Amino acid sequence: MERAMYTLYYAPGSANLVVHLALIETGARYELKKIDIENGEQRTPAYLAINPLGVVPTLIVDGVAHTEAASLAMLLAERHPDARLAPAVGSAQRADYLQWMFYLANNLQSLFRQWFYPGDHLAEGAEAVKEHSRIGIEKGWTFLDRHLAEHGPYLLGDTFTLPDLYALMLMRWARHMPRPATEWPHIAALATRLKARPAWQRMCEEEALVEWA
Amino acid sequence: MERAMYTLYYAPGSANLVVHLALIETGARYELKKIDIENGEQRTPAYLAINPLGVVPTLIVDGVAHTEAASLAMLLAERHPDARLAPAVGSAQRADYLQWMFYLANNLQSLFRQWFYPGDHLAEGAEAVKEHSRIGIEKGWTFLDRHLAEHGPYLLGDTFTLPDLYALMLMRWARHMPRPATEWPHIAALATRLKARPAWQRMCEEEALVEWA
Repeated sequence: MERAMYTLYYAPGSANLVVHLALIETGARYELKKIDIENGEQRTPAYLAINPLGVVPTLIVDGVAHTEAASLAMLLAERHPDARLAPAVGSAQRADYLQWMFYLANNLQSLFRQWFYPGDHLAEGAEAVKEHSRIGIEKGWTFLDRHLAEHGPYLLGDTFTLPDLYALMLMRWARHMPRPATEWPHIAALATRLKARPAWQRMCEEEALVEWA
Repeated sequence: MERAMYTLYYAPGSANLVVHLALIETGARYELKKIDIENGEQRTPAYLAINPLGVVPTLIVDGVAHTEAASLAMLLAERHPDARLAPAVGSAQRADYLQWMFYLANNLQSLFRQWFYPGDHLAEGAEAVKEHSRIGIEKGWTFLDRHLAEHGPYLLGDTFTLPDLYALMLMRWARHMPRPATEWPHIAALATRLKARPAWQRMCEEEALVEWA
């Protein structure tokens, strides 16, 4: 699998971030294609043909387009077991690995969508939806911080795995919120540890991220 | 693994439903422990000791408590590959499998929490949050229905897999909504097909479900 070639469609700092980091961590060869979200490129027929929801990321795997950031990162972890981004199937840590991937998807990532696009479904309710998401996200950080205090420094304990990268993306998304994730001390320590990995630096350069970099 | 023993803590019709169905489909031996949600049993010290978030389901696997419904169902699929609830790692369908599990977690299950508990984080915004969730859920059904029309009858095409059971649980949750999921024709056809499986009948009996059974 070391010569596998992937194509990642991305917008700087968007949900592609966890997939991009996973790609780097696997050591796989990949190419990047930037989608100009600000000018609506995600709504062009060309992009909708490969991603019917018109969102980033899209990852081309063996010539087929796939989406949903967390699932793409898990797929990469499976296809490149040597990178040890995931505990092996059947291992004792496997349940925790799956649990954290879904906790982050279900409880945190979904609320960030509401934080960034609160009027997506109903313009007049946007303020309430945004406030609901803020409180939910802060409850999520509190839960995560307590878990890291008791069982850290990584989400799965002593071992760095994919859920850490997923959490790191969400931490970055919270950087302009009233209470950034790094105000929780054990989350801040995890962020520092993860940002020291070469993959973070390379991802920031390739996506040209300057904030929180 | 055929003699594995699991304990599932459940409340009738709650998020345990997909885990319960997966348990039956694997053929594994399991025992059920009912949590009396209406009388707050999920908030007792005894239950919080095994599930710090105070939610159902909890699944005891090899003596260790785990949570997050979708991840528990995926864990069961991995531990019982003969049940063929998931495409094998490395197979062409694997990306679609992961993608649908996260689509349902991220886009639909998270909105159902808001539909059922709209004032969870902010009492005064509850109405707007509920309406936001209703519209989002209906958009989700529309997306799912179109996918099934083009690529069904199951989410992964010709093959029944775990994402179908996950979707079935969410369809049942929508039964009292202004527009139940079964108003979308291809979703209704999938529900009929899945409810004909012996696992559905047994689950309804064991959880004593009478509505939408």
